[in-house]
Amino acid sequence: MSVHIGRDQYQLAWDRDIDPIATVASGDTVEFDALDASCGQITATSTVADLEVLDFDRVDQVHGPIAVDGADPGDTLQVDLLDFQPADWGWTAAIPGFGLLTDDFPDAALRITRLGNGFGEFLPGVLIPLAPFCGVLGVAPPDPGPHSTIPPDLFGGNMDTRHLTAGTTLFLPVFAPGARFSLGDGHAAQGDGEVCGTAIETPMRIQVRLTVRKDLHLAAPEFETAGPLATATNIGPYHATDGIGPDLMEAARDAVRRMIDYLGRVHGLAAVDAYLLCSVACDLKISEIVDAPNWIVTAYCPLAVFN
Amino acid sequence: MSVHIGRDQYQLAWDRDIDPIATVASGDTVEFDALDASCGQITATSTVADLEVLDFDRVDQVHGPIAVDGADPGDTLQVDLLDFQPADWGWTAAIPGFGLLTDDFPDAALRITRLGNGFGEFLPGVLIPLAPFCGVLGVAPPDPGPHSTIPPDLFGGNMDTRHLTAGTTLFLPVFAPGARFSLGDGHAAQGDGEVCGTAIETPMRIQVRLTVRKDLHLAAPEFETAGPLATATNIGPYHATDGIGPDLMEAARDAVRRMIDYLGRVHGLAAVDAYLLCSVACDLKISEIVDAPNWIVTAYCPLAVFN
Repeated sequence: MSVHIGRDQYQLAWDRDIDPIATVASGDTVEFDALDASCGQITATSTVADLEVLDFDRVDQVHGPIAVDGADPGDTLQVDLLDFQPADWGWTAAIPGFGLLTDDFPDAALRITRLGNGFGEFLPGVLIPLAPFCGVLGVAPPDPGPHSTIPPDLFGGNMDTRHLTAGTTLFLPVFAPGARFSLGDGHAAQGDGEVCGTAIETPMRIQVRLTVRKDLHLAAPEFETAGPLATATNIGPYHATDGIGPDLMEAARDAVRRMIDYLGRVHGLAAVDAYLLCSVACDLKISEIVDAPNWIVTAYCPLAVFN
Repeated sequence: MSVHIGRDQYQLAWDRDIDPIATVASGDTVEFDALDASCGQITATSTVADLEVLDFDRVDQVHGPIAVDGADPGDTLQVDLLDFQPADWGWTAAIPGFGLLTDDFPDAALRITRLGNGFGEFLPGVLIPLAPFCGVLGVAPPDPGPHSTIPPDLFGGNMDTRHLTAGTTLFLPVFAPGARFSLGDGHAAQGDGEVCGTAIETPMRIQVRLTVRKDLHLAAPEFETAGPLATATNIGPYHATDGIGPDLMEAARDAVRRMIDYLGRVHGLAAVDAYLLCSVACDLKISEIVDAPNWIVTAYCPLAVFN
């Protein structure tokens, strides 16, 4: 059996007491026709003026919830990520007050990217291979009452994890009867970290299979990929920049600042364009987290995007 | 021209006033025969008793320094990483008071791994593909006096960055006349993060080319890889575990704890063995660092090590 969830079937909060909009059996598939994370406020013809009047109370809506028969608190919901089909456009933005380097980039910026043939031409000559996924995948939270959809938590939610692409199996701990699964926040491409706060945001058609696992008890989300990571971008050299110091957050900021410097110095990008490119294509790795008192976060840019 | 640095030619501190043991021209290659990071205290026949009497003042010795003619403060030292040849054995340890989960693993543990044919059999049936590099690569620091070799800093040092393998080009900012380059800390294999504080530590023969770059001015280390990342391990599925919360360090701890739980639950590993395996084979990525107040650090285990 397959259930279809439309683009107008969403919630603006996580709340375990919101009634399911559909109920499926364990093992059923669900298709979603999901709006982008702006809940349709940003379109393919938007400008930065539209960003400046964005209603934040409508951002990161979640499509659902779907109850799964037999799911009980303590079980695990297995979510097989079957298919992600982005629209033919997406948007990426620097939003004042949001993002890793919001103090460095106080002004709003918006970039619309045309998507097609497996790529997005993010900037002239900069082609991002698409690797679509959902930023938001979650179940009803353990605590009652409404919860913002912006932060992720142990029930999943806005995990913005780029390797949750088609073929990956996600495992979410169940906290409410029926699990009450929702998703949203289509991303056509993103780097580890999503440093500016947005990916290539896009409306998306999604298909997942929901299965109750009585044999598995987890404290937090886990997942298993179907194969190697980042196969679309990990095809050639990377340039990497280090942030080094006693605070991981500040080290991450420094690593991204130095990548922005490199992207300007070598590839001629304007600083804000480089910042947005870091968010959609560059990966943050923790290189070392043990050589006290200094840790290293490294930003990696796949140079394939310039070919 | 090529200079050879022997295993007894090392320093136990970074100090810009230590006289160079050799001087080379820009573009020369240097060969090192480097002791392992214990400075020879751990051998292929060591037991945990040897670890318990380890003299920490002799740990992470750095072989050098090598002056490069014409290098001035403000220049960049380009280090072409030409070749890394590990010995036929290596060691991995949990050292009390050191490592990401030292509070969870208060007891010393030592594992000796035989290396050969491009693999180390880390545990019965657990084969780690070798991807050798040096944990320590650095130049003389900007400030006078002796500095510990344990923490990395803007001059490089103990960066423990697994992607600094052969073919990669490292760029280090120069702070002292002649740059005064040193290296050490041979690693046969390591994951991003080096979470237990040690990799597969091994004596190593190393070849690098040192070139002064007058045209490049950097604030911190950068590097460029020759091709895709992690080609030896990124060949199949990964299992991934999330740490989620408002502190990146605690999120990293949680992610690794959950990976240790997975490795016990599914692969039957003892907790301390799983901890050491995380250090030599699992990667820490920052999945998202923008969805305030909760960030996600994810630990990725390449399942190829179990094949």
